[in-house]
Amino acid sequence: MEFRAQDIAEFLKGEVDGNPDVLVTTVSKIEEGRPGTLSFLANPKYEHYIYQTKSSIVLVNRDFTPEHEVAATLIRVEDAYQAMASLLEMYEQSKPQRVGIEDPSFISKSASVGENVYVGAFAYIGSNAKIGNNVKIYPHVYIGENVVVGDNTVLNSGVKIYESCRIGANCILHSGVVIGSDGFGFAPQSDNNYKKVPQVGNVVLEDNVEIGANTCIDRATMGSTIIRHGVKLDNLIQVAHNVEIGANTVIAAQTGVAGSAKIGENCMFGGQVGIVGHLSIANGVRIAAQSGINSTVKKEGTVLQGSPAFDYTPYQKSYVLFKNLPKMRTQLMELERTVKELKGE
Amino acid sequence: MEFRAQDIAEFLKGEVDGNPDVLVTTVSKIEEGRPGTLSFLANPKYEHYIYQTKSSIVLVNRDFTPEHEVAATLIRVEDAYQAMASLLEMYEQSKPQRVGIEDPSFISKSASVGENVYVGAFAYIGSNAKIGNNVKIYPHVYIGENVVVGDNTVLNSGVKIYESCRIGANCILHSGVVIGSDGFGFAPQSDNNYKKVPQVGNVVLEDNVEIGANTCIDRATMGSTIIRHGVKLDNLIQVAHNVEIGANTVIAAQTGVAGSAKIGENCMFGGQVGIVGHLSIANGVRIAAQSGINSTVKKEGTVLQGSPAFDYTPYQKSYVLFKNLPKMRTQLMELERTVKELKGE
Amino acid sequence: MEFRAQDIAEFLKGEVDGNPDVLVTTVSKIEEGRPGTLSFLANPKYEHYIYQTKSSIVLVNRDFTPEHEVAATLIRVEDAYQAMASLLEMYEQSKPQRVGIEDPSFISKSASVGENVYVGAFAYIGSNAKIGNNVKIYPHVYIGENVVVGDNTVLNSGVKIYESCRIGANCILHSGVVIGSDGFGFAPQSDNNYKKVPQVGNVVLEDNVEIGANTCIDRATMGSTIIRHGVKLDNLIQVAHNVEIGANTVIAAQTGVAGSAKIGENCMFGGQVGIVGHLSIANGVRIAAQSGINSTVKKEGTVLQGSPAFDYTPYQKSYVLFKNLPKMRTQLMELERTVKELKGE
Repeated sequence: MEFRAQDIAEFLKGEVDGNPDVLVTTVSKIEEGRPGTLSFLANPKYEHYIYQTKSSIVLVNRDFTPEHEVAATLIRVEDAYQAMASLLEMYEQSKPQRVGIEDPSFISKSASVGENVYVGAFAYIGSNAKIGNNVKIYPHVYIGENVVVGDNTVLNSGVKIYESCRIGANCILHSGVVIGSDGFGFAPQSDNNYKKVPQVGNVVLEDNVEIGANTCIDRATMGSTIIRHGVKLDNLIQVAHNVEIGANTVIAAQTGVAGSAKIGENCMFGGQVGIVGHLSIANGVRIAAQSGINSTVKKEGTVLQGSPAFDYTPYQKSYVLFKNLPKMRTQLMELERTVKELKGE
Repeated sequence: MEFRAQDIAEFLKGEVDGNPDVLVTTVSKIEEGRPGTLSFLANPKYEHYIYQTKSSIVLVNRDFTPEHEVAATLIRVEDAYQAMASLLEMYEQSKPQRVGIEDPSFISKSASVGENVYVGAFAYIGSNAKIGNNVKIYPHVYIGENVVVGDNTVLNSGVKIYESCRIGANCILHSGVVIGSDGFGFAPQSDNNYKKVPQVGNVVLEDNVEIGANTCIDRATMGSTIIRHGVKLDNLIQVAHNVEIGANTVIAAQTGVAGSAKIGENCMFGGQVGIVGHLSIANGVRIAAQSGINSTVKKEGTVLQGSPAFDYTPYQKSYVLFKNLPKMRTQLMELERTVKELKGE
Repeated sequence: MEFRAQDIAEFLKGEVDGNPDVLVTTVSKIEEGRPGTLSFLANPKYEHYIYQTKSSIVLVNRDFTPEHEVAATLIRVEDAYQAMASLLEMYEQSKPQRVGIEDPSFISKSASVGENVYVGAFAYIGSNAKIGNNVKIYPHVYIGENVVVGDNTVLNSGVKIYESCRIGANCILHSGVVIGSDGFGFAPQSDNNYKKVPQVGNVVLEDNVEIGANTCIDRATMGSTIIRHGVKLDNLIQVAHNVEIGANTVIAAQTGVAGSAKIGENCMFGGQVGIVGHLSIANGVRIAAQSGINSTVKKEGTVLQGSPAFDYTPYQKSYVLFKNLPKMRTQLMELERTVKELKGE
């Protein structure tokens, strides 16, 4: 699709400074601009790029005064960053949307499927599943028996949802996500074998949840593993059985949460964090990447680092001294020598 | 399905204390009990829940004496925890089992498929593959040429098994598991490129192995990557080429084992552990989460922590002192001052 | 297929020492040799195996002089390791190659597909996709609209490529790889919710790239996430949006690279490494397993360890002292006592 500078300016309630008829088909970063693309400049740090960019259009703040000549057509708006975000959204929404049922797909006769749904080829919808309106089920998605999927949810190619799990409305699950695989529960037997503990619970995702590619959320032993509304999980995350993650918590890639841990709301965890099982973490806790949490965190808003983790600032102090251990050892040895001399040895 | 208190008590050789005709359809944790569910109370720590629970039935130990009124029907048994485990198993087994071949699926003419098998829609069985009896192959499973799958094994939706790998009997592979992808082997060339080393071996899983969602086990360069009987691997684990994991070893999520490492029997590794390649680990070794093992562990039953790891107890001691490094530094500086004074400087 | 010792020797320009008519069907490690297999001996450390091996043929260096009797037929060559590598390649190439289009598969009418291509059953090729010559698309692969796949590339079963991504020539993507899932971008809202930032960029893989099983590469917010030619990524790696990985860089399993990080050429990263976003790493940098990089690395060839990481050798020194902290503390306490005595307290 092509967009004209004048039309974009009208959409954004901005003003054109340059050729109002120049056309763009996509967006680019200002430093990677090519003819036919639209970029934005919000941070003054990047101003130098606007004099070199090959982008056809650049969104700028209303008060921007160029110091050199600018080849691109400018569109002046109140807030160039917000304007760009609005445009990206408009651009996303203007893309053709998949709808209808591709052949061959497998839809159990006892399943119910809402209106305006996309079911890709090779998608599988099991018995008694309930699919809401406007849901997009891409190719190779597996939906087990008795699964419920809320309105407007998108299941990308290859998502797997085991039986009896419940996915909320307005969720996005990326390719390779596994929902409802068995929790890791085994009872040791006297002969060193393990016996599987049946995992008869399920997984519940509330609304507005986004789950990154190849992330796994295990079903509960009994009851539910619960992901509250607005939670955002990145790629390759492990969520074990009976975990609960509080509303609007955001977790970066490759983090793991062990069984029955209870995570608060509005937490932010870095990547590759590990959370031990059967503990709870207060609301608003922030954890640095690669940290390991092995005890309950009661105080809201705590910031943690280390493996095992403790408060961020003392961790930083200890780590600086860890780097300086060779120097500390030298000081210690010199002191020992001096003291020996003082003792007359 | 509905179960009656009296029938459950008979199955468990227990006694009903309350209404023998009350019906339940599922199980729940006692603290999350709802009408129509059955719970259990084994740990006295949770006794207070029994006076509030809405569960219709609670399994308790024979000697349990309530201190307050209990609304639920009790079933008194020898060991409430074991009784619950038996019930869960019975419950699992009573679920309808998938059987038969759904359409469309792809079964190579040269493949052999046992009796009482389930082959889901969109499953793929390659040439000369041999599938045992009672095997369940869910939708979107890929089975390469010459693969062997033992009796009673369950391959959940989206499992991928590359050519010539061998899966034992009574195994469970969860969604997204990849068996037999190429090992990571590249020979550096003089011009900084790398040349692929062909990976012509395979993967062998013995019997009673369970593999968690999205876990990857690479094929051997030559010979076999071997997972011995009874091994339990959690989700998102990496097992590199030519690794061997000993019988009944249990490994938590997101752990990685590098090439040609040889892990003993009955080991227990926490989550996010890393094992360097070409080393061996004795039987019964336990490794704390997030630890990194970079040398052979010869002593059976060793417990390790740290990255790089060393013995657990000394690690704990060092880590306490790491936390106290700022205090240690203060002590050191005070000593330096005092000694200076003593020297008359 | 069967191969005769004499024919192998001729292919390798070597000489047979033993029965020239002995037949082999596959290869094995010398310590696991079985009749009908071919092994090699290059490293003198393993010489003792040649006197026990049951392999039918062993490749040895021309100057090898056995100290005991050897049952196997020897083939003497200039360099036994290189000869083995050549044989493995020949063996790989001699395997029957899949070609043709299996039924049912889904190929959009607007897609273009090159010559001599394999499209497995249940593979999906979206609208306007362009598939080169000799490409192998295994079952359950998903190729979104406008995706380009270069000549000779292999997409193993279950690879998922989102719309508009570009895959180079001679690439190998293993099962479960996800290319082009949305980057993890959310704008915090005043009410503690997050709003998705549309991810309208794509992923570009240049030529000769190999990507391990279940590795994820997110699409750029704008522009491209770029994997340069010759890069080799192991299994379960996370590459976030707008990352660039330089040519011929090799990264081991379970490493994560956060958004907009720029990795140089010819780097080598161990497993479970974490790279913070928005930093750059020079060419030829090497990072020890489980390390965490939180600042730009400017010097080429730097070797790093630790979380957060610093130079390898000082890290090693600090870590030795970390292990010895209890001893250091004892020294410190003794000194304190002695100094107290000296002061006459």
